[in-house]
This record gives sequence, structure tokens and C-alpha cells, in this order.
Amino acid sequence: MERVTIGLAQINPTVGALEDNGNKIVDFIRLGKKRGVDLIVFPELAITGYPPEDLLLKKSFVLDNLKVVRELARYSQDITIIVGFVDHRLGEIYNAAALLRGGRIEGVYHKMLLPNYGVFDEKRYFKPGSGSFTFFSKRATIKFALTICEDIWEPKGAALTLAANHEPDVVINISASPYHFKKEKIRESILLSLAKKHRVVLVYCNIVGGQDELVFDGASVVVDSAGVFRYRAPCCEERLGIVEIVSHRNKVAVKKCDVSAKRLGSLEEIYKSLVTGTHDYICKNGFSQAVVGLSGGIDSSLTAKIACDAIGNENVVGASMPSRYSSKETQDDARRVAENLGMRFITIPIDRILSSYCASLADEFKGLKEDITEENLQARIRGNILMALSNKFGWLVMTTGNKSEISMGYCTLYGDMAGGFAVIKDVPKTLVYKLVDFVNKKDACEIIPGSVIKRPPTAELKPNQKDEDSLPPYTVLDPILKLYIEEDVSIGEIIKEGFDRKMVKDVVNKVDQNEYKRRQAPPGVKITPRAFGKDRRFPIINKYRA
Amino acid sequence: MERVTIGLAQINPTVGALEDNGNKIVDFIRLGKKRGVDLIVFPELAITGYPPEDLLLKKSFVLDNLKVVRELARYSQDITIIVGFVDHRLGEIYNAAALLRGGRIEGVYHKMLLPNYGVFDEKRYFKPGSGSFTFFSKRATIKFALTICEDIWEPKGAALTLAANHEPDVVINISASPYHFKKEKIRESILLSLAKKHRVVLVYCNIVGGQDELVFDGASVVVDSAGVFRYRAPCCEERLGIVEIVSHRNKVAVKKCDVSAKRLGSLEEIYKSLVTGTHDYICKNGFSQAVVGLSGGIDSSLTAKIACDAIGNENVVGASMPSRYSSKETQDDARRVAENLGMRFITIPIDRILSSYCASLADEFKGLKEDITEENLQARIRGNILMALSNKFGWLVMTTGNKSEISMGYCTLYGDMAGGFAVIKDVPKTLVYKLVDFVNKKDACEIIPGSVIKRPPTAELKPNQKDEDSLPPYTVLDPILKLYIEEDVSIGEIIKEGFDRKMVKDVVNKVDQNEYKRRQAPPGVKITPRAFGKDRRFPIINKYRA
Repeated sequence: MERVTIGLAQINPTVGALEDNGNKIVDFIRLGKKRGVDLIVFPELAITGYPPEDLLLKKSFVLDNLKVVRELARYSQDITIIVGFVDHRLGEIYNAAALLRGGRIEGVYHKMLLPNYGVFDEKRYFKPGSGSFTFFSKRATIKFALTICEDIWEPKGAALTLAANHEPDVVINISASPYHFKKEKIRESILLSLAKKHRVVLVYCNIVGGQDELVFDGASVVVDSAGVFRYRAPCCEERLGIVEIVSHRNKVAVKKCDVSAKRLGSLEEIYKSLVTGTHDYICKNGFSQAVVGLSGGIDSSLTAKIACDAIGNENVVGASMPSRYSSKETQDDARRVAENLGMRFITIPIDRILSSYCASLADEFKGLKEDITEENLQARIRGNILMALSNKFGWLVMTTGNKSEISMGYCTLYGDMAGGFAVIKDVPKTLVYKLVDFVNKKDACEIIPGSVIKRPPTAELKPNQKDEDSLPPYTVLDPILKLYIEEDVSIGEIIKEGFDRKMVKDVVNKVDQNEYKRRQAPPGVKITPRAFGKDRRFPIINKYRA
Repeated sequence: MERVTIGLAQINPTVGALEDNGNKIVDFIRLGKKRGVDLIVFPELAITGYPPEDLLLKKSFVLDNLKVVRELARYSQDITIIVGFVDHRLGEIYNAAALLRGGRIEGVYHKMLLPNYGVFDEKRYFKPGSGSFTFFSKRATIKFALTICEDIWEPKGAALTLAANHEPDVVINISASPYHFKKEKIRESILLSLAKKHRVVLVYCNIVGGQDELVFDGASVVVDSAGVFRYRAPCCEERLGIVEIVSHRNKVAVKKCDVSAKRLGSLEEIYKSLVTGTHDYICKNGFSQAVVGLSGGIDSSLTAKIACDAIGNENVVGASMPSRYSSKETQDDARRVAENLGMRFITIPIDRILSSYCASLADEFKGLKEDITEENLQARIRGNILMALSNKFGWLVMTTGNKSEISMGYCTLYGDMAGGFAVIKDVPKTLVYKLVDFVNKKDACEIIPGSVIKRPPTAELKPNQKDEDSLPPYTVLDPILKLYIEEDVSIGEIIKEGFDRKMVKDVVNKVDQNEYKRRQAPPGVKITPRAFGKDRRFPIINKYRA
């Protein structure tokens, strides 16, 4: 009989912070030793952070990451360490996992399946590995196989790896698998079926935290060979999870386990991802305070709530910037949201500035009617004010646009799109309502007032303006957008689903014509299967409409 | 003896405009027939335009492109056609070349080497081909092999293809090879050595025109098996080039040729690429007029000149937006540049607007000194005015920042960075001077006045401001930026080249810290081996500095 205590170090490294990441790994190794861990597992590219993107093209970056691995090996005298790093051989680089044991690098595995779709560009950098990697426990009664993320995602690849591995007892998978809505469920069902199919214990250790557009949700798990979950780490939090694996008469079983961290509800998991992504974007970029333009509408209210949960309400300022078109109701609502959240609230009216623009442009615009120009001017004045506050006080500007608006270009470039981080840019408007409902229920009080929720959406850039004057109702628009943007369904097929022909054509046209705006948008948290940004790479010059 | 007249159709398709591209191809086929062409060659992905990016993920897009190929086949009754398209087999797509002959698709070649570096993402979409493709002339005396772009760029790949091709007489390469400085020279030296090494005639047909950040320069060529250039198409222009190939007693020779189109000088080729990229971005996006903010400085002067050469001076408006810090000299120079170019010139002072912002922000900023905030406000007011003109009149805003500024973040987000197209964003400041000199000499008159060239660069956002107060001299800065950005050289190695340690560290820091600004910048023409944008994918959250 042999017992191996495994630690799953679900950590949050920072891209490029090689030394800090190394120190964090050492802290977890120390903690593991204290808690009797024999084998500690760190995520994919834990040393560099994920994704390091074109940093990988720098020789010095790869060499510096190798130094960290060698230093970490010194800590493996009385604990075995698996850690993700960038390996370098004969001028090629590999997405790799090191086995550190006995004070040295005992072996290295190279990831075989490199994802190059969606947000992933791994074939831009890495050469695929060509062989599997196994190792034994000290008394040689348990055989482990190493895999990295995608290796187990493709049915073919998984089979290949596992077969080639000469029947391991335990398959370790180190991952940097980014979050989207329901991803944890998809992931767990893949892991479960693999564990059962190949009769192995699966130890899945995922990275956690935000990196630009991505949030890694962690949610590391251990599944036994019967397909039963024996450990589940919390979502979006650093954690050292511990399980014990026991071999007895050629059988390997999981003992001592902890499945107390339940899977979150779908709204809760989305909300937590938004908060995590926002927190890490602000803090990893060296900011500690943020400002949100509060219009009294539902989008900016939700954005403010997320920002407060991310960095503390004492660090978030709400700015109301009313114009002649702002109603008393929306201004009161903006103030009430700030009060409910306990944020500082400032008011800077924009009418005087708007008048000065109109006066300065009067000669050029003589004889012409007011149009979208004057609406955009208002939005851009607000953008400028927020950026001025940012410049003066070091507050990062959170923009408040949702995915439905940004899809349709129903937003002003350099106006409401101006800012450092677009918190809800991947959240469709209908989901904004659900999240607000979730937030209000969670805190068991109406943080975001009913009047904000009930008011028909309006940009308040001209008298009596309503979103629905320019856009289809969001309950109709959002399903069309999902089909077109996330599922690549053609106009003809969307119409067949029962939507109005003219409306569908108009929606598709607007989505495509507004790619130029999105190209200049700040990043925001990806929560759907296909977000704008690196996930959806569309040409700006694009005459295709179908 | 057999004669085959080959037409190289160096065309400028538009991404996504399948029907228009098909019609353009038919026009060239008709022209070819009229001029006695037996075999007409179109560039890589001529039907879809290049690069189609995520349009390739749409089934309907791929199917619609297949329809165009089938329609084109009908035109191949009395002419043989080679054309680039997207092939679709068993759920996979291929970057393909069709051989159309006798009214049908006689054969299809699949590109074997898929570039996935720099601006290229071909592995995101395509499966690589696995076999070569050859065909014979009508009387079977000349053997042709088909290749696509990258296939001949990698020494290994070329050898592979050609060897597998059982000694063809003529290798046709259809390309979509984007321009950068000196690329034509590099390309021609590769073609020359391949032709000689494998003793083949090389027919190289490249696409032409601008697509977002890229310019395709065309410069199609024919090289004979002795390594002599027998045809050269002009750079950046549509053209049907014609050569005659003759087989006689098992020897294949090139007759009737035209090498009158000389390679351009390096400044001329850069300038022509900038004009082409700007023209196509404006026109393919459906605009016909543009506006440039004219400061009287060298960057905006060059930008205006390029815009005028791209779409005609009658379609470009120069806007001067002076403040209290604008000198009489720069204002006069702005006007003089507009006059020299024959552009409309308008003046909209910004002081009144600036005062209204300062008044509105006075409470919040009470007791605080003026700083970068007030400088940025001026730049952003100008950005807003240009965007207001754009909204009201449909003028596309051309931004005027150069690569040196954009590298260092010496530019204002939503200010001078606001606009649709960043004409010289990949042109380092030292090259701006050279291009202005080139332009002045070319037109044999001082289009851009000497006073503009001689004045030390200044942003005029505070009294007596000079670029060199904040930045190293451009003659020192540009070489550092080239090493760091284009060649991935580390700080230590740059210092070894003889640059000041503190300066190098400061430059690298600024480049990395300002990634967030560049992420929100408009596209502009790539002219260096590594531009910002799709060519250089850096994380915003990035703690690596070395």
C-alpha cells in the first residue's frame, strides 16, 4: 500500500511577472509541505502567466522563465512538483510541464495538441510535442501521466495520449482554460467521461484570475475512475486543494477528499467572473481606484456594482454628467445607486461645454439640422470628463456598454466607449437584467432600484429618446445577435428561425458596419462562447452580408 | 514547338465582395482573351479577398465563394484559368487554387504551408494540403506546377513541393504577400534562387491593394530558369501582365516579355504603399472624403499630402484648431500646407471650449496644479471637433501620429489618436522627414515648407513645449525602438549596442506601458517588418521588462 497526498495549486499568476510568479509558487510549495503534500501540481504556464502572447517571441523572456524553473527545482527535495513553463529546445519553444523531484528537473512533457482557434494562438508560438510522459510514485505503485489542457479536450487527442501512456493510474492535466458561460459544466462532463472511459483518476488543475479579456475560473477537480467527483475547487479563487490517493493490491483509489465547493448557479458564476476580471484588470495594471459614469440607467448601475465588489466601494467614484436631456428621474436614480453602493458621487453638468462646442462649430454647421453629430458630442464630452478625472486622480475609467449595444454600434466611439475597461461588453442586455435581479436578490435589498429596472432604456441624448426607436426590442435582438455572432448562422437561416427578414438584414448590416468601432474599444471580460476582441477576428473592410 | 501566352492578372479584390470580385475576374478573363492569353493566373484567394479572417468560419461564406468558382469555370472554354479560392472538403477548408479548363473545374491544389506568424493566422482556418498538383499545356509539352504563396517561401517547403512535382517546367505561385519595406527585394531574391536551383520558370502573381492594416504591393514577376527577370508588374497597381512561354525540343523558354516596370526606390515604394493603403481604406469602406487636423507640424503635413494623393485634394479638408499655445508660425504653416496642396482649409479655435471644460471641472480640480490632464483635454477637444465634422459631413478622420510617438505613448487616446485611419502610424519619425524630403523633391517644389521641416517637433499643448523635453532625440529613439519592437532585442543587448542604460530602460518601459493606448488605436498601413496591430500581439497586463 502506498499513499500519495496530492496538492492542486490553483494559483493566479500575472503575465510576465516571472519573479513574482516564482515566489507565489514557492509560497504554495511551502504551504503544501506544511500540509503533508507529496506531489503538488501547478497550472499550465504558471511561471509566465497565460497567455503570454508575443512575449514568447523574446529570447530573453524564454530564458528568464527557464531560470525560474531551475530555481524551483531546488525546492523539490522533499516534495514532487509539476509546473507549467515554456521549454526551449533547438530553437523551438514548447508549452511544457516540468516534473521536479529530488532537487532537479527529472523530466519534461511537451503539450501535443495546440489550440489555435477562438482566443487561442498557440501555433503562432509553440511546436507540438511528439511523445507522452509518465512517471511513478516513490514506491512505484502508482503511475502518473502528464497532459496539458487541450491534450484532453479533443476526443482523438485524449485517446491517443492515454493509450500511448501505457495505462496510467492517474492522469494529471494542467490547464489555462478560460471561462465562458457554462464552461465549467462542459469541462466537467469531458473530464468525467474520460476518467470513466480510460479508468483513470483525473487530476485537473486550472489557472485562476483575469488577464486582459480573459478570466480563468479555476474550478479544478479530481474525478475518480468511476466518474465520481472527489474534489472541486472554488471558482475564481486561489486555493490549495488536497486529495489523497492510495494504491492497494494494484488498485488506485481516492481517499480524503473535499467536494464542499459546489458548482455555482449560472448567474452567480457569470457575476463572479465579471468581478474577478474587473478586479484583476484594475489591480494587475497598477490601479487601485476607478470611476464610472452613472446615468441612472441599468448598465451603468450594474457596472458600478461590479466595480464596487471588485475593488471596494471606497475606491469607486460615480460621476453623473447631466445635460438638458437628462430627466430628474434618471439623475435621482444615479444618485440613489451611488448611495446604495456607498460610493462617492460627483456631478458635472455638460450643458455649458456642449454650448461652447456648438458655438465654435456654428459657422461650419450653419443651416444644417441637428443630427447624430450633436448626440455624439454629448457622449464625447462625458468621455472627456471621465478621462480628465482619470488623468488628474489616477482613476481607471470603467465603460458601461453592454454586448447588444456594442454589437449594433449603438454607442459612441470616444464617448461612452472611452475608458480603460469595458466591464459588461460581453453581457447582452437581456442578461444585464437577469444579473441585476440576481444582485438585488443576493444582497436581499434593492441595491439597484426598481425604477432603474422598469424604465425603458434610453440614451437621453435628445428629447424622449428610447433605445427601441433605433433598435429592435432587446428580447428579439439578443437571440438574433447570438445566432449571428456566436453561432455564425447566416441571414437566411436566422429568418427561418422565425425572425422578420428586414429586421435580420438590418441587424446583420449594423453588426458588420460597426466593426471599426469595436476595433477601438477597450477590453472587457469574455463571458460568452464568442466575445468581441481576440475571439472574433473580423475585417473592417468587409463587403460580405449573408 | 508549343507557345503558351500567360497572363498575370494582378488584381485588387475587396474582402467579402464575392460577386464584385467574380465580376472583376471575368473582366480580366475577357481582356486576356482579347490579348491572346492561353493561361490566365489570378492571385491567392482572389475570390474572397485576403485575408478574409473569421468570415472563413461562416459556412455560407465558403459556399458562396464556391458558387463563384463554379461560375468562373464557365468562362474557361477557350482559356485556362488559375484562381485562388477557399475549398471545402469533408468539413475542412483549404486555401486553394483551382485549375479551370474546358468549362469545368479540372483540378484543385491545396496550399501546403500555412503561415501562422506575424499578421498571418492561416492555421486558425485552413487544413494544410498534402499533395502537389501539376498539369500539362494543351499539347502536353509544358508541365506546370501550382503553388500558393508560403509554399515557396520556406526553403524546406519549396524543395519538397518541387521535388514532389516531378520536375515541372513552370512553377506558378499565386500569392497574397503583404508589403513591408524592402519586401519586394527579399521576395525577388527568393524567387530568383528557386528558379535557378530547380531550373524552372517561375510565374509569381501577387494580389494588390489595401485591406485594413495591410497593403499588397503586387510586383508580380516572371523569372526564367537562368534566374533572369523576364517580366515585372508595377507596384500597387492592377495590371494584366503578359509573357509567352515556348517549348522547343524539350526546352522551355520565355519569349515576349516586359521588364519596363522598374523596382521603385525605397522611399518611393513606401510612399506609394501609404497612398494605396489610405486610398483603399477610405474607398473600400464607402467614404469619398477625408479630414486631417493640420497643426503646422511635419506629421500632419505629410498625412495631408498622402490623403490628397490618395483621393484627390478636392476631397480632403484641413482643419486648424489653434489654442492659446499655438504660435503664429505653426498656424501660418498649417494654412500654407493646405494652400500648397490645394485643399480646403477651415479654422476652429478651441480656447472657448477648453475654458468651458476647465470651468466645469473647477470644483473637482480645486487646489490642484495643471498637468497632463489639461494637455490631454486640448487634444481631446480637437479629436471631438474632427469627429463632429466627420459625423456631420461624412468625412473620414485621418489621424496623424507617427510610429515613434505611438510606440512611446506620446499621444492622446481619444485626442490626436481619434479617427478612422492612422495613415503614418507605422512610419518612424526619422522616416517621416525622409518621406517629406522625397515628396518635396518629387513634385519639384516645396509642397511642405522648409519652416515645417526645420522647426523642432512640438505638441504645443503648453508653453514652449518640445518633444525632446519628454523623449530622447528621434535620431536616438528610432534605432532603440527598431531593436526593441521589430527585432525583439532585450534591454541588455540594446545597451550593448551603445545606448544609454537609463534611456533604454525608460524607452522599453514606455513602450510596454502604453500597449493599452495602441489597443484602442485605429488601423494604419503596415510598412515595417513589424507593425503594431495584428503583427505584434502584446498583453496589456504585462509585468515583463527586459
